[in-house]
This record gives sequence, structure tokens and C-alpha cells, in this order.
Amino acid sequence: MEKIDFKGLSALYINCTLKRSPNKSHTQALMDVSEGIMKREGVKTETIRFVDLDIASGIPADMTKHGWEKDDWPEVYKKILDSDILVIGSPIWLGEKSSEATKLAERLYGMGGELNNKGQSVFYGKVGGCIITGNEDGAKHVAMNLIYSLQHLGFSVPPQADCAWLGVIGPGPSYLEKGSNAAESEFTNKNTTFMSYNLMHLAKILKENRGYSSYGNNRKAWGDGERWKFKKPRSKF
Amino acid sequence: MEKIDFKGLSALYINCTLKRSPNKSHTQALMDVSEGIMKREGVKTETIRFVDLDIASGIPADMTKHGWEKDDWPEVYKKILDSDILVIGSPIWLGEKSSEATKLAERLYGMGGELNNKGQSVFYGKVGGCIITGNEDGAKHVAMNLIYSLQHLGFSVPPQADCAWLGVIGPGPSYLEKGSNAAESEFTNKNTTFMSYNLMHLAKILKENRGYSSYGNNRKAWGDGERWKFKKPRSKF
Amino acid sequence: MEKIDFKGLSALYINCTLKRSPNKSHTQALMDVSEGIMKREGVKTETIRFVDLDIASGIPADMTKHGWEKDDWPEVYKKILDSDILVIGSPIWLGEKSSEATKLAERLYGMGGELNNKGQSVFYGKVGGCIITGNEDGAKHVAMNLIYSLQHLGFSVPPQADCAWLGVIGPGPSYLEKGSNAAESEFTNKNTTFMSYNLMHLAKILKENRGYSSYGNNRKAWGDGERWKFKKPRSKF
Amino acid sequence: MEKIDFKGLSALYINCTLKRSPNKSHTQALMDVSEGIMKREGVKTETIRFVDLDIASGIPADMTKHGWEKDDWPEVYKKILDSDILVIGSPIWLGEKSSEATKLAERLYGMGGELNNKGQSVFYGKVGGCIITGNEDGAKHVAMNLIYSLQHLGFSVPPQADCAWLGVIGPGPSYLEKGSNAAESEFTNKNTTFMSYNLMHLAKILKENRGYSSYGNNRKAWGDGERWKFKKPRSKF
Repeated sequence: MEKIDFKGLSALYINCTLKRSPNKSHTQALMDVSEGIMKREGVKTETIRFVDLDIASGIPADMTKHGWEKDDWPEVYKKILDSDILVIGSPIWLGEKSSEATKLAERLYGMGGELNNKGQSVFYGKVGGCIITGNEDGAKHVAMNLIYSLQHLGFSVPPQADCAWLGVIGPGPSYLEKGSNAAESEFTNKNTTFMSYNLMHLAKILKENRGYSSYGNNRKAWGDGERWKFKKPRSKF
Repeated sequence: MEKIDFKGLSALYINCTLKRSPNKSHTQALMDVSEGIMKREGVKTETIRFVDLDIASGIPADMTKHGWEKDDWPEVYKKILDSDILVIGSPIWLGEKSSEATKLAERLYGMGGELNNKGQSVFYGKVGGCIITGNEDGAKHVAMNLIYSLQHLGFSVPPQADCAWLGVIGPGPSYLEKGSNAAESEFTNKNTTFMSYNLMHLAKILKENRGYSSYGNNRKAWGDGERWKFKKPRSKF
Repeated sequence: MEKIDFKGLSALYINCTLKRSPNKSHTQALMDVSEGIMKREGVKTETIRFVDLDIASGIPADMTKHGWEKDDWPEVYKKILDSDILVIGSPIWLGEKSSEATKLAERLYGMGGELNNKGQSVFYGKVGGCIITGNEDGAKHVAMNLIYSLQHLGFSVPPQADCAWLGVIGPGPSYLEKGSNAAESEFTNKNTTFMSYNLMHLAKILKENRGYSSYGNNRKAWGDGERWKFKKPRSKF
Repeated sequence: MEKIDFKGLSALYINCTLKRSPNKSHTQALMDVSEGIMKREGVKTETIRFVDLDIASGIPADMTKHGWEKDDWPEVYKKILDSDILVIGSPIWLGEKSSEATKLAERLYGMGGELNNKGQSVFYGKVGGCIITGNEDGAKHVAMNLIYSLQHLGFSVPPQADCAWLGVIGPGPSYLEKGSNAAESEFTNKNTTFMSYNLMHLAKILKENRGYSSYGNNRKAWGDGERWKFKKPRSKF
């Protein structure tokens, strides 16, 4: 188990709490644990609180061209493009990810047609994961959707790329509130650690591989008629 | 876009249709498209129809030790261990993956405590994806769950690791039934192709990397007190 | 099959499209079909487009008391309280309900502590349903969440309280775009009709019953120690 | 808050644990709390453990006509038809309902074409709810699917028709195991109580109403061309 050098990697953390700064965010507290690990490993990190920005609703890449006065999405998108790792943080409300996290997924989806110079989605070669906090229930449900969205858009997902903290069922203290004892949760601490390292591992591996070969996944080539070893099914029914 | 040599890789396809052989399975028809690509690329492949086997219900590794007369899970598990790639196929019923797919996830989950010689989940280094067919709706919902389960258990997920075919809303012909025209679905064909290649790409990359370094994700080391660069959060509230 | 008189009922339709007026909303087009049925049956109806309003992010009942300059939620909440039927409409993006629909669920959840004069959630006695449109996939996934949220908050759900239109898999025309032929979808038309009538039926039945008796579900009484026929489980393990 | 007389109602509880009798089921323990309430209120109740039966995989009503040697589904279906209330219990594995619960949903779905003498789904007039237990996470996710499936098939869903117990995040004691202190969970006990009463309330209301009028939801009439107040949308795009 030799030490690995992660220098040269960069990670963007987007916190999708509903609370604007300077209100305290429990989700941020758990995200800080992961970001701290990456920082101490030499990864360049940055955190954005999505609700602090003016992010328009909609799918087009820049909603100021569609009637919205302001739209901070283009600069967030640029930061994502500049990062090797994207970590989405979300609280849970009524068992579901936040509306801010949903808006983030929508805006990411809006870039789904953008291609890199290999004819692949621009997110190919990047890795993604998520960090969830809630009072009692819903971490896996939220992660299912975020992990799915990330891989669907072109991110790669390493093993155990989600981590979470949940309190006991029913109302109760949130992460880092008195009485939650969350900082001592061996389970959350371990998963947060493994998630952070696995994101770094896969990001490093893919970076050294210069992302994915476009053999078999080049959209432009497909459009031009290339099919590689694909063959149409023959009806058997 | 140079050709890549995928020889030496192996892939296991598990079809979770509810229909026993020799009944025709629409899901199998789409799985065959993917398996065909891998075969023609030199990957060693095998397909299992889960419902044809006697798979017991339960979480323990071998249910014959828990009152069931028969349990074919141990041999399926062995095949999974011997493969670099796992592809789960499922039909959709009432918007949900099949009970066979659910049982497969349960049995995989039951092995979650098994570690490789690096102290990681035995599924580290393997990659996973899924293939879904349905009449009208539910492919992404099913994939969310299967993709999540795979990464949670230690599989890595490359970009766009799910593909599907769905008919128009309401009752109608299934995949490869007359009138579905599914074989001509450019969208399904493209996604099936990209999924197949991305699974091979990441499997090859990880195999050449001998899986993941255990720096930061070794369960045994964590149990022994190793924390790498993790630090406990300090309460801020 | 005698005709039923639904006069005296009121229904609120909330469209959670991402598109601000006067942009055309496909979801609105299908909602109009349902609203038209109710109107012609004598139900008083109203439609709100959520994204046209200034709805703050957050859980508290009025976010202007928490740092937001404007928050139109209180007036939407009042409209919901004044209605017997709530119908939530949502488009689908990446297989998921819209961020506007998620925000609506959050704001509804924020009122979860409000009680009527019987000690029940203020939504007891009201009925709810949802209308979904999308290009290819996700209607049931979205409805699962919305239907769940509605019943969890106190709404009642009649049979088949969701309806949807989806196009064929992959990119294609949206509801009422040329080529979709959606207006002729027997399946969507039937489900929209049944949903609309079942919402009216159950709303009428519950209104005539003056909502639910509070025997067994009165939160205040529970807080005061009333347990009706509940008995604590005895440990058996 | 007058007492209500629930005599004459009947409720069927189906436990979808993976454990065969006589193994102890945590889910059963919480189901017993609900069933106890109904019994003490005079409701006729019965519990089935699904995994104890020989339920075939598949959608047709009787799989012995499709190559399976045995299929106990027809008798379970008969019990459901004979009940006013259906309560589905499920454990959670990997954040998901059990494969037994999935199989139950599939078999219920297989009866979706059966009509009562009013031309409605045979489940119209019945009410449904669910009871979930798990170690740490997933109760709402499971309930979303089960509640959705029930209403989609024709059951009505009263307010707060789901209840659950979950332990703290990570491995830990299950419901009624030593150390869980689950029997004292005010939250679970209250929700279980309210769910049980609301199921009885709505079942009684609907029974007294003789189910739903078929005005607007009669499938046979729709097939014969009746449209009530439905009008086709006109294209607006």
C-alpha cells in the first residue's frame, strides 16, 4: 500500500444546500471532511454554494439569451470543465435531493451535446461522486439519482463514490449539531474517506490515460456512419 | 482513434428476465447486441439467465446452510469473480426492475463483506453496466438503481454505462416484436455500442493498473486504525 | 353509471415547467386537457406556473423572514389551502422531475407542521395527483416521488392519480409538437380522463365526509398521551 | 373525536421478508403493531409471509399454465380480492425493497386487466399502504415505489399510508433487536398508528360509498367510445 501522489489533480465541490451564505450548512460540514482529505493530498480544490449564485432555470447553456436577466451557470460550467473531479453535495428533504441539486443536474444535462475534440461528451475523463446529509432517511435514494446522472453525462464513477450521514428516524439533530455525535460516526467517516480516495485514484488513472480512447464511443464518427463491431439485431420473434 | 486490443478481458451477462428458457426474452435480444460487440472484439463472454437457476432468497452467501434445499448462487458468484465486466439485463414491470434483478442485487450485497488481498471489496477493479428493455417507461429508473448498487459494492462505472429500448407510451410491441422497429432505433443502437466499448475501455485500463491502489480504501487498514489524510470534523454549530 | 355532480369542488393546477411565460409548455398542454374536463364538470379551477413566481429556496413558511427579498410561496400556499384538489404538473429532465417541482415539494414539506382544527395536517381531506410529460422516459419515476410526497403530507390519492405522455426513446417531438401525434394517444387520453374523474370522485366523497375523523390520527391528542388501540411492541428477539 | 366503528372491514398483511418461517422477521414485528391496532378495532385481519409460499416468477395470472410446476399466487390474489385493505411489508436491502416485494408488485400488475362489474380495475374501492423496516436508510424510497404501484393498480391511498423504522446509519441492531430501542421510537409508533387508522378510515368511507362511481373511469365504456367531458387537445405549437 504505497502512497500515491495526487498532485496536479483538481476537484470542484458544489454544495446544493437550500441555505444561502452565511447560514451554516450541515452538508458543507461533511463536504469539508472530504475536501480536507483532498487538499492534504495536494489536490487543488474549490467549493461553490450553488444557491448563492444566480442560476437560471432552464436547459439552454446561457439563459440570458432566453429572457433571464442573469445566469451564473456559464461560469460554473467553466469551473467544471477545468476540474478533474466533481463532487455534488445535497441535503435531503422529504426523502429527495434538493431543488438546487435538481437544477444542477438540469444545467449539466443542458451541456450534454457538447463534445470534446475526440467526439465524446466533454465530461469524459472526469470522475464524479456525491455527499449527502439528512435527518433520517434518503441518502441512497439521492445518491442513486446523482450517480446515475453523472455517469449518464460522461463522468466515470469509482467504487463507493457516495457517502452520507443520517440521523435516527424521526426529527432529531442534524450533522454536527449537538447531540448528533456525527463526527464520531465510524461508518460515515470511513465512507467519506474511501470515496475521496477512490475519486482521486480514478481521476489520476484516467488523467494519465488522457481520458478514454474514442474507439467505439465517438459521436461524430457514429454520425458519419462508423459502427466499429456493432451489428444490428436480427428479429427473432 | 486507433483500434484498441481488448483480448484477455472477460464479461459476464446476467439476464434477469422473468421468463425461463426456452421462452424468448426481449431483454436477451438487446443483450445479444452488446455481447456480440464484445465477442467480435475478442472479449470472452458468457450469458446467464438468472431465473433458469435455483437462486435462493436471502443475504447469506450460501442459503443451503440456512434451510434452503438448493442454491445456485455460489456458482454465479464464482463466475462474477472470474469476470472483468458484469452486465445486468432487466425488463421493466410497473416502472421497476424485475424481481430477479432485485434478487441478484441482494445476493451481490450479501458478498459485500468479502475482501480481496488488498483489503478492498472483491469487486474492486471490475466494471459494471446495465441493459434495460421495456414497453414504454422506466429505463432510467431501473438503471439508477442498478448502477448505484454496482458502484456501491465496488464496481467502477464508465461513462454512459446503461442502454435501453422502450416503446411508445401505453401497450405496444416489445423489442424485436413485429411493429416495434426496434432494430432500427439509432438511439438504442448507439447507446448500446458506446456502453459496450466504455465497459471494455475501463475494464482494460483498470486491469492494466491491477485494480485500485489500496491507499485510502483498505478496510483492514482502517480497522487497524490507519486514517491516511482523514481528519474528524470539528463541530461548528 | 349515473352522472355525478361535482359542482362546489375546486382544483388547483401547478405547472412546474422550467419555462417562464409566455413560452409554450408541453406539460401545460396536457394539464389543459385535465383542467378542461374538470371545468366542464363544474369544478372551479385555476392554473399557476410556478417558475413565473418568485419562490424562494428553503423550508420555512416565509423566506422573507430569512434573508430573501421576495417570496411568493405564502400566496401559493393559501391557494392550496383553498382548494379541494391539487394537481402537480412536471416535465422530465434526465429522468427526473423538474427543479421547480422539487422546490414545490420542499415548500409543501415546510408546512408539514401546520394542523387543522382536528389536530391533523392541514392537507387532510384534500386529494392530489400529477401530470407528467417527457420526451422518452421517466413518467413513473417522477410520479412515484410526487404521489409519495402528496400522501406523506396528508393528501389522499385516488386510483390511477397520475397520467403522462412520453415520446419514443431518444430525441424526438414533444407533446403537441408536429409529428408527436400525442393528441391521438388513446393511452394518455384515457389515463388523463380517469385521473381527472377519480380526483373529483374522491374529493367529493371526502368533502361530504368533512375530511377524515381525527380518531386515531390527531397529533395533538397523541402529544397529550392518547394512543387509541396502539400498543407498544414487545421485544421478541 | 368520536370513536368510529370499523367492524366489517378486513385487512390483508403481506410480509415480503426474505426469511422463511420460522425465522424471525423484523418487518413482521412492526407489521404486528399495525395489525394489532386493526384487530383491537374489530377489523378481520390476516398475515401472509410471501416467501413461505411457492410464488412463481412471471406476469400471467397462473404460471402453472406457463411451465411452472407450482404457483400459489391465485390463492393470494383471492385473499386480496376478499380484503378491503392491503398492507405490504418489506425489509430494505441496499436501499431497495426486497425481491419478494418486487415479485408481489409484478403479480399484482399481472391482474391489471381484470375488471369489476363497473368496468373498473378490480382493486377500485380497496385501500393500500406499506410498512418498511431497515437498518439505516431507504424507507421513503421503498414506500415511493409501493405506494405508487398500489394507486396505479387501483387502490386508494389515505394520508400518511406508510410507516417505517430505521436504525442509525451504518451497521447496527435491527428492529426489536437488543440495543435498537425501536419499541420506544415515538416517531415510528405514531406513524404506524396514524397509518393504520387512516387505512381503516378510508376503507370504511369507500365501502359505505360502494367504491367509486364508474362515471369517468369505466374502461368498458371508454372502449365503447364514451368520453364523458374529455376533449382532445388541439395542437398549439
